[in-house]
Amino acid sequence: MYKKIALLPLLGTLFAFTAQAGEVAPTPNGLKLPEGYKDWRVISVSHRIDNHTLRMILGNDIAIEAARKGQTNPWPDGTILGKMVWKEKPEDHWKTAIAPDPDGFVHAEFMFKDSKRFADNGTGWGWARWLGREQKPYGKNAGFQQECIACHTPVKGQDWVFTRPALLP
Amino acid sequence: MYKKIALLPLLGTLFAFTAQAGEVAPTPNGLKLPEGYKDWRVISVSHRIDNHTLRMILGNDIAIEAARKGQTNPWPDGTILGKMVWKEKPEDHWKTAIAPDPDGFVHAEFMFKDSKRFADNGTGWGWARWLGREQKPYGKNAGFQQECIACHTPVKGQDWVFTRPALLP
Repeated sequence: MYKKIALLPLLGTLFAFTAQAGEVAPTPNGLKLPEGYKDWRVISVSHRIDNHTLRMILGNDIAIEAARKGQTNPWPDGTILGKMVWKEKPEDHWKTAIAPDPDGFVHAEFMFKDSKRFADNGTGWGWARWLGREQKPYGKNAGFQQECIACHTPVKGQDWVFTRPALLP
Repeated sequence: MYKKIALLPLLGTLFAFTAQAGEVAPTPNGLKLPEGYKDWRVISVSHRIDNHTLRMILGNDIAIEAARKGQTNPWPDGTILGKMVWKEKPEDHWKTAIAPDPDGFVHAEFMFKDSKRFADNGTGWGWARWLGREQKPYGKNAGFQQECIACHTPVKGQDWVFTRPALLP
């Protein structure tokens, strides 16, 4: 009896850890949410005035290095770009400053560059989107990538990426 | 003669190093450009539709930790916030996405929190701005801080900071 009680908190901890680690499901094309993306550095930002969203475009270390060297056409294999999208909201005390609504996170989109692994879809990139704070993978099957690619076709000539890095002095 | 020639490249290197290290002058109130700010993580972004600029708000490690814990009123001593400001430019291939003009860097502004050191100006923050890619310190004398403080007075009640952190899931 004593042993059983002593084990309970341990089992609880193990279960919580497992649940947390497996919490975000992969996309239908088998991509996993990149670890540590919240700590990535920023490549640029944008404000889509058509759908009223603000975006931070983040990059993993390979992406940041490539951006700073101007080696972005093509981006090197191993690059991951993340677009964090928020509903817009005027700042409470400066109404003409349009900022993310802290309660309005829309989705996180990622592009994974691997010219061999993702040669099949014709772009060399793996495409992924997780919806909302619950981080639900987007797409019913792997075909969802065609939506991403269709939208990005105008920037086929710049390795399928809209963002031009905003480099700091 | 041989010695003199051999020394020249060395002297050149030393001079270049000194020039580089001392390249960015401090502000009239004695603040130095924070080292490594280009590698800081992002706290939020904004688009000022009144003066047509896009901004990335970056934070040092203390700022990021405070933002994630929701401990931002007041921000802890040691916090540095950096606002990187760019002229706006529609993206070439998505005209309703307004992004920084990569050639239009305007200035970098910083707020340094130290409730003792900066008690004198009534805010607990040191204020600084460096103009353009040449990073010229703003202000003719330390009085320039009054301009910063005047603009930030509407957010006196949230520790003088406009930005509300946009936290990722």
